[in-house]
Amino acid sequence: MIRVAVIGFGTVGSNFARVLHEKRKMLKDRYGLECELVAVSDINRGAVYDPEGLDIAELLRLVKESNKIDGYKGGVKGMDSIRTVREANADVVVEAAWTNLETGEPGLTHIKEALRAKRHVITSNKGPIALAYPELKRLADENGVQIRFECTVMSGTPTIMLGMDGLAGHIVNGFRGILNGTTNYILTNMEKGGAYADILKEAQKLGYAEVEPSGDVEGLDAVGKTVILANSIMGAKLRVADVEREGITKIAPKDIEAAKKQGKRIKLIAHAWRDGAKVKAKVSPELVELTDPLASVTGTTNALTFDTDGLGPVTIIGKGAGGIETGHGILSDLLAIHRSM
Amino acid sequence: MIRVAVIGFGTVGSNFARVLHEKRKMLKDRYGLECELVAVSDINRGAVYDPEGLDIAELLRLVKESNKIDGYKGGVKGMDSIRTVREANADVVVEAAWTNLETGEPGLTHIKEALRAKRHVITSNKGPIALAYPELKRLADENGVQIRFECTVMSGTPTIMLGMDGLAGHIVNGFRGILNGTTNYILTNMEKGGAYADILKEAQKLGYAEVEPSGDVEGLDAVGKTVILANSIMGAKLRVADVEREGITKIAPKDIEAAKKQGKRIKLIAHAWRDGAKVKAKVSPELVELTDPLASVTGTTNALTFDTDGLGPVTIIGKGAGGIETGHGILSDLLAIHRSM
Repeated sequence: MIRVAVIGFGTVGSNFARVLHEKRKMLKDRYGLECELVAVSDINRGAVYDPEGLDIAELLRLVKESNKIDGYKGGVKGMDSIRTVREANADVVVEAAWTNLETGEPGLTHIKEALRAKRHVITSNKGPIALAYPELKRLADENGVQIRFECTVMSGTPTIMLGMDGLAGHIVNGFRGILNGTTNYILTNMEKGGAYADILKEAQKLGYAEVEPSGDVEGLDAVGKTVILANSIMGAKLRVADVEREGITKIAPKDIEAAKKQGKRIKLIAHAWRDGAKVKAKVSPELVELTDPLASVTGTTNALTFDTDGLGPVTIIGKGAGGIETGHGILSDLLAIHRSM
Repeated sequence: MIRVAVIGFGTVGSNFARVLHEKRKMLKDRYGLECELVAVSDINRGAVYDPEGLDIAELLRLVKESNKIDGYKGGVKGMDSIRTVREANADVVVEAAWTNLETGEPGLTHIKEALRAKRHVITSNKGPIALAYPELKRLADENGVQIRFECTVMSGTPTIMLGMDGLAGHIVNGFRGILNGTTNYILTNMEKGGAYADILKEAQKLGYAEVEPSGDVEGLDAVGKTVILANSIMGAKLRVADVEREGITKIAPKDIEAAKKQGKRIKLIAHAWRDGAKVKAKVSPELVELTDPLASVTGTTNALTFDTDGLGPVTIIGKGAGGIETGHGILSDLLAIHRSM
C-alpha cells in the first residue's frame, strides 16, 4: 500500500487523482499497486487529510461544483502545505503547485521538506528542478528516497525516463528538442500564412497561449526544460541564466518563406552540447532540414533528440501539455517508485 | 558484483563484451555497477569459463585474430551452452545465439534452462520471445528472476522499456512502426529512383541486406518484432502465424510515383490494434501521410508509434541494427536488472 499526499489541486493534481481513481483496478491487477490518496492541500481550494484515505470521486465532485474541497465530510481540515508534507502519513508527496522559475517557491520548500521527512517526491513543477536539481537529488539520496519529475518536460511523454533509464549506459553528448508547444503552434500556423501577432491572438483564444505569453514566446519555458534535461541526464550544472536565449517574437512571414525556399523549417530549438568538460545550451529559432525528425513535429506536439555515443540519435515525439497527459505522467513516476520498492 | 555468462559470441555477444570492457569505469562511477564476464560459450568459437572473471580484452583479441577463443590462457574450456547456462556461477545469462523464428532453438532451451537455474536472462534473440514470451515470463516470475529483451526490437533503441516502463499506467491500444531497416532502406532508395531488384543488390553489397533476403523483404522479421511488442506490451497472445503479412517484393517504381503524387510515402508498416478483447496485427506496405512522424524515417532507421489512452501517440525513432548499438542495448537491460537488485 502506497499513501500519497498531493500539494496543489489544480489541473495537474486533480487529473492525477482522477487517473488514480479511474485506473484503480487496472493498477492493482497489472502492477500490484494499491494506493490511497491520504491528503490534499491547495492554497486556494482548501485542505483535507485522512490517514485512512480520501474519497477521490467526492473530492473531484466538490472541485467541479465549487472549486473548493473544504466541504469534504470527515478528515482533518485546513492543514497547510508544509504541515501536510511534514505530518501526513504519506510515502509519496506529489508536488503540483505553480511554477516559478526565479525562486522555485513554494515548490522548492515543499520538496525539501518532503525529502527531509523521507518521503518520495514526484513533481511536475519546473522551477525547483531547473533551479536546484543537483541539491535535491543529493537530499533525496541522503534520505534514501527518490525524486522524480517526468512531467516537467513534455508533460507525460516519458522523456526523462528515456534519458535516464532507457539510455542508461550511454554517454549523452547533447540533445536538440522542441520543448514548447505554444511557440511550435505559432510557427506551424505561420507556415500556413499569417503574421505572428494574429496567430498569437488566435492561440490565446484557443487556450494554447497564456494571456501573458512572454514565458513561452521569449523562450524562458524552454530554457527551464533545457536546464532540467542537461542537469539530470548530462550531469551538467547549468543555471537558467547560463542558457543563451532568443524567442520567436521577431520571426516574420518573410523568414518563414525564406526557410521554405531552402526546403527547411523554422523551429524554436532547445539545444545542449558538451564543450570539453562543460555543458553549454541555448534556446533559439533554427532552420531545420525536412529530413530531421524535428521538422515533422507540428502544432503543440513536442519532440526531443538525444545524441548518444552508442546509438547516435534517438528521438521521442509526444504531447507536451494537457491535464490528463500530465496526470498519467505522474502516475508513471509513481509506478517507477512502486517497482523499486 | 554481477556475474555474466554470454551464450553466442558473434556480433552481439562480442560487442556487448566490448562495451562492458570499455565502459567499466563509467559503469562503476555512475551506476555503482561492478560486473565480471565469467563465461563465454559459442558453438563455433569455443567456450571458456572462469568463476573469477575472464579478461575481456584478451577474448576480443583472440576473436579478432582467429575467430576462436579456445586459445585463452586459463579457465575451464569446452563447456557447451547448456552446461554453461546450468553450471557457471552467473547471475545473468546473455543469450545471443542465432535467431530461428520457427523453433526458437537453440535460444529457447538456453533461456528456459537459465530461468530454471534462477538466473536473469537478457536476450537479443527474436525467436524465443516471439514464440514463447508468455511462457518465459511466467517461468521468470516463478523463479524470481527477470527476462529482458530490449534488443529484439529496434536493437538498442529503448522501445521495450518505453512501452513497459515509460508508458506504465497507460493502456496501449495499438502501435504502428517501421521495424525492419532493410526494407526501409530499399523503399527510401526506390523513392530516389531505381527498381527494387537493383537496389536490393546494392543493399546486399553494402551489408544492409542478407544474401538470402526473404526474411526481411517478405516481412517475416517485422512480423516477429510485431508479435514481441504485442505480447509484451499489449498483453496479447499472438502467434507468428496470426499476423497477416505482405512484403515489399511487389512494389514497383510506378507505386512509389503514385504515392508521391498523393503527397504520401510507401512504408512497410507493422501494425497492431485491439479488436474487442483480441489484439490483431499485420505487416504490409502502407501509404503514409508526410505529416506522420513515420514518413520522415528514412534508410535503415526504425521507428515506432504507440497509441495510448493517456497521451495519444508517442513515437520513438532510432537505429534498428548494428553491433555496438545492440551491445549497448544489452547493457541497458543489465543496468535495469542492476537497478532492481
